[in-house]
Amino acid sequence: MNFSSKLLEDTVAEFAKLPGVGQKTALRLVLHLLGREQEEVMRFGNSIIKLKNEIKNCSVCHNIADQQVCEICASAKRDKEIICVVEDTRDVMAIENTAQYFGVYHVLGGLISPMDGIGPSDLYIDSLVQRVATTQVKEVILALSATMEGDTTLFYLYKRLKDFQIPITTIARGIAFGGELEYADEITLGRSIITRVPYENSIIK
Amino acid sequence: MNFSSKLLEDTVAEFAKLPGVGQKTALRLVLHLLGREQEEVMRFGNSIIKLKNEIKNCSVCHNIADQQVCEICASAKRDKEIICVVEDTRDVMAIENTAQYFGVYHVLGGLISPMDGIGPSDLYIDSLVQRVATTQVKEVILALSATMEGDTTLFYLYKRLKDFQIPITTIARGIAFGGELEYADEITLGRSIITRVPYENSIIK
Repeated sequence: MNFSSKLLEDTVAEFAKLPGVGQKTALRLVLHLLGREQEEVMRFGNSIIKLKNEIKNCSVCHNIADQQVCEICASAKRDKEIICVVEDTRDVMAIENTAQYFGVYHVLGGLISPMDGIGPSDLYIDSLVQRVATTQVKEVILALSATMEGDTTLFYLYKRLKDFQIPITTIARGIAFGGELEYADEITLGRSIITRVPYENSIIK
Repeated sequence: MNFSSKLLEDTVAEFAKLPGVGQKTALRLVLHLLGREQEEVMRFGNSIIKLKNEIKNCSVCHNIADQQVCEICASAKRDKEIICVVEDTRDVMAIENTAQYFGVYHVLGGLISPMDGIGPSDLYIDSLVQRVATTQVKEVILALSATMEGDTTLFYLYKRLKDFQIPITTIARGIAFGGELEYADEITLGRSIITRVPYENSIIK
């Protein structure tokens, strides 16, 4: 592209590094910013810098937090003996939105993916084992994506945790609520028949 | 959404103000930034702040520029007597990319749009009339989008400029190169028959 300004070109190049943002979208976003008030743009730029400088990882669950220990880990209302293991902070937010879970979390920071060069030592797995070994835990829920990487991580975590003699569970897989049977894939449908549950257990209360 | 951090929430809110970026996309972008190097994120944030603080409008053509007068207006190679009137800086870039135009530009900063409350006085139209009145101009090319707003602006500009007795032209409308006839809309196809050109003129040299 033929930029009329070096400043414009630099900023567009920075935006174009974001995932899913190409040169044209980046230019549109930057021109939009240029049309906004000075004060608003300063707030936008500074919020990014402030975030990166001041954000912390919770020292217990490794979730993104403002303090040394996140709100969930610090809350007296949460059951510290149930740990839900998730990939990243988006999963914590998704589960929190359901308002169905009252235990605490452990954020791995990713999934094991040999293709991308991510091994167990790149994730917060040792600290999970440490946590299970040193604190009172009555259940570990593995809530990982049903992908190749998720299953690999699931298998590895199970191997590392099974000797502690505590229940290790995974979230239920099956046909989504509102999902039509004829459009479900064979694996999900097949597994949902094998892992069928008593009717009374399937009702939302 | 249930954010685990106020800092995260603020930054996501800022990103979600960008056009075409919703809450979920904003979160994805911010988490991506969090995963990047400190230095890179600082560069990203600072480039936005620097852009807004230091960017200028060319005092001649109102295009976005680093200096008081943009490179095109300052260039000795450009024909200052041909002015191409465009909506915004993206159109300047698009025309520059064709490498077919060697005159100068006039950036209106938008199009007349009563629906959005944008009238002639909100655009750099007076300064265009001023420019035509005070400098030697041999042609004004109106290169505006073929939309309702574009046509309204075209008509208004024509009215303001026609008394100067200089040729006023618009870019050619018709079937795009590579375009198939059967998929063209009726108006474009109809007009392209009425405004047909001698074969020799239609060849790309």
